Amino acid sequence: MQRILTERLATQAGATVTIQGWVHRRRLFKSVAFLVVRDASGLAQVVVTEPSDRARLERLTEGTAVEVTGRVAANPVAPGGAELVEPLLRTLSPLAVPTDFALHRPELDATLPTLLDRAALSLRHPRRAAALRVSAAAVAGFRAALDAERFVEVHTPKIVVSSTESGATVFGIDYFGRRAYLAQSPQFYKQMMVGVFERVYEVGPVFRAEPHDTARHLAQYTSLDAELGFVRDHRDVMAVLRGALHAMIETVRARVAVPGLPAVPAEIPAVAFPEALRIAGAHPDEPDLAPAHERALGEWARSAHGSEFVFVTGYPMAKRPFYTAPDPSAPGYSNGFDLLFRGVELVTGGQRLHAYDDYVAALAARGESPAPYASYLEAFRYGMPPHGGFAIGLERFVSRLTGAANVREVSAFPRDRHRLTP
Amino acid sequence: MQRILTERLATQAGATVTIQGWVHRRRLFKSVAFLVVRDASGLAQVVVTEPSDRARLERLTEGTAVEVTGRVAANPVAPGGAELVEPLLRTLSPLAVPTDFALHRPELDATLPTLLDRAALSLRHPRRAAALRVSAAAVAGFRAALDAERFVEVHTPKIVVSSTESGATVFGIDYFGRRAYLAQSPQFYKQMMVGVFERVYEVGPVFRAEPHDTARHLAQYTSLDAELGFVRDHRDVMAVLRGALHAMIETVRARVAVPGLPAVPAEIPAVAFPEALRIAGAHPDEPDLAPAHERALGEWARSAHGSEFVFVTGYPMAKRPFYTAPDPSAPGYSNGFDLLFRGVELVTGGQRLHAYDDYVAALAARGESPAPYASYLEAFRYGMPPHGGFAIGLERFVSRLTGAANVREVSAFPRDRHRLTP
Repeated sequence: MQRILTERLATQAGATVTIQGWVHRRRLFKSVAFLVVRDASGLAQVVVTEPSDRARLERLTEGTAVEVTGRVAANPVAPGGAELVEPLLRTLSPLAVPTDFALHRPELDATLPTLLDRAALSLRHPRRAAALRVSAAAVAGFRAALDAERFVEVHTPKIVVSSTESGATVFGIDYFGRRAYLAQSPQFYKQMMVGVFERVYEVGPVFRAEPHDTARHLAQYTSLDAELGFVRDHRDVMAVLRGALHAMIETVRARVAVPGLPAVPAEIPAVAFPEALRIAGAHPDEPDLAPAHERALGEWARSAHGSEFVFVTGYPMAKRPFYTAPDPSAPGYSNGFDLLFRGVELVTGGQRLHAYDDYVAALAARGESPAPYASYLEAFRYGMPPHGGFAIGLERFVSRLTGAANVREVSAFPRDRHRLTP
Repeated sequence: MQRILTERLATQAGATVTIQGWVHRRRLFKSVAFLVVRDASGLAQVVVTEPSDRARLERLTEGTAVEVTGRVAANPVAPGGAELVEPLLRTLSPLAVPTDFALHRPELDATLPTLLDRAALSLRHPRRAAALRVSAAAVAGFRAALDAERFVEVHTPKIVVSSTESGATVFGIDYFGRRAYLAQSPQFYKQMMVGVFERVYEVGPVFRAEPHDTARHLAQYTSLDAELGFVRDHRDVMAVLRGALHAMIETVRARVAVPGLPAVPAEIPAVAFPEALRIAGAHPDEPDLAPAHERALGEWARSAHGSEFVFVTGYPMAKRPFYTAPDPSAPGYSNGFDLLFRGVELVTGGQRLHAYDDYVAALAARGESPAPYASYLEAFRYGMPPHGGFAIGLERFVSRLTGAANVREVSAFPRDRHRLTP
């Protein structure tokens, strides 16, 4: 008999059906026993009364994959409003060894390295699995928001001939005997695609050979990148970002139970960089915000604006990449911004240069030759409109959203300086 | 004034609005001139009558980024049913050099290597851009079909400690001084995630150091991977694949004009491997299908079943990877399948082994130690259900769908043995 998902049980009252899933819990009372089966759609309760079935159930370890055929009986107090009675139990896949993780406990009693080493098992814990569901929902919301605004999804090379942003944190590859690198971001490619589609996005892996072992860096993470043309300046980019974040969080809210999910304000508070330094109590000559400054700004946004989000706009040009557009009204400052979420930098974005000559000049000012950038720069020779974009780090977003202390907790199989398996 | 997308013009009749986009075409008649502006949403016509505007229009090269403010006038014969009159023209970004590609011609007059070298410009040609829109639509359809079936999207490592499928075509990486590799597929990870979510999918890059320069291989391509638990055998996997393909093609049909789009039959014809050899006129002892055999099978499916798709099931075990489940009723044959689309292998899939002991035995039979696979094999110790999955090569699918002769034509920035830029 073709299995049905447990979420459909209530629609089948009176029928005999087959469900398949894992033994989630057993509840063994004197006169009756319950088997709770978990599948992709949720939980179903099976009522066991026959002594021989009862004896089998007592030997069935949590985590065993099982099939149950039985009659559907309406029961308002069962999960989903129905349960299976008069069951025929079949083991599909037993445990080869007893589970040493108590997956039904609210918390897993193991250190983070152990949880990561044994991801195949620990990810089955509802808390760890929920973080990955949040991740999937956030990405779905991101795409839905941008699809609705006529963005086109693109796929760009992860193997590149030179490093995108800075040479310090790049992985080298042997590419058919040539030296190549893993892409640190799709920055150049998404800009080139603005000339094609005006508005593009990409969801994909990016790679950073981060030398530091921190709770918020990974060697591979998922970057949600968007870029759009015909902007007035960075504020049009910020408006698209606000819409994407709103859709991400509301999609999470609709799909997964996460306590304390924030709302994205209709207008996210924005402070100019010098003002941000002042609020954070930093010296006015600081060229960048330190993590402590970001935390202070997060506190300020919450207390002054009731917002978990705050934009810092107009970072000094010296601290932004060469393709950043300057602020025409404030020499030395840029049209680049960061978005802080709960006191941590979550998004970097801004307006980019769009005129070919400006690129050549910007590279020259940094003592760089335009030659290695030739195929990128070509895009700017042919009517590239004013444009800008942003990149959201997915794991950092999800860890802040779920309250995970370490970004590794919300990555299925994280990669860092020391970790290459599973 | 905030720009509006050209698709909204018809709703603004009588109002003064601003549009932004590229000069797509100019039509210069004696008494009137038309400027056609292209933006993310389509085309808009601007009516130019003032002599000074006319003179400016004559100097505006196709491809220039422009802004036009004007009054919206209903006109049933204009694109979208409305046009802009009494325009105020502003150049946003001129061409630094004249375009040497005639982007408004039906075909680009250049060789494929030139088109690829100059992707930033050549991708703006409607034919090349359309192939990438097909790609985006196909992926959207894939996700929608699987989301509706309760699959969860996952993101898995692209940097791995050993090669997944075979050591011959793997790129090596310097990973913090250790040797690592680029993932050739998310196979192991998606299987591990079946134990967590039962049903998962991933859309992401995979890497093959293909030594051959063919029209259907890339060193990086986008793989659409799915894996599902609690299957009876490979036929449940084939049913999910059929649904995904249907959604992919129907989403393309809804979004992009592609001549000759096929329909996916409700039941895709399936032939067992020995029968496939017979139909293809191959020797009955052949262990695999050669490209010529695949073409013959494609012809047969079309003439005998009116289908552009055909499954070949039950490939010999010897030609399938170690994790493949054997066909319990046919010794030496597997529950693995391929899907041919228009005579080319498009999808590989099948049922996998699910019992830990079977994995250990399968590796031993191939003379391999289980040690390098330890963190993968752990998943199978703890009640992994019968499962299977498949992988669709996106670029190969899109090239077949659009009639592109070379898979490089449907990749924005292809990577191959010789190509590392742009």
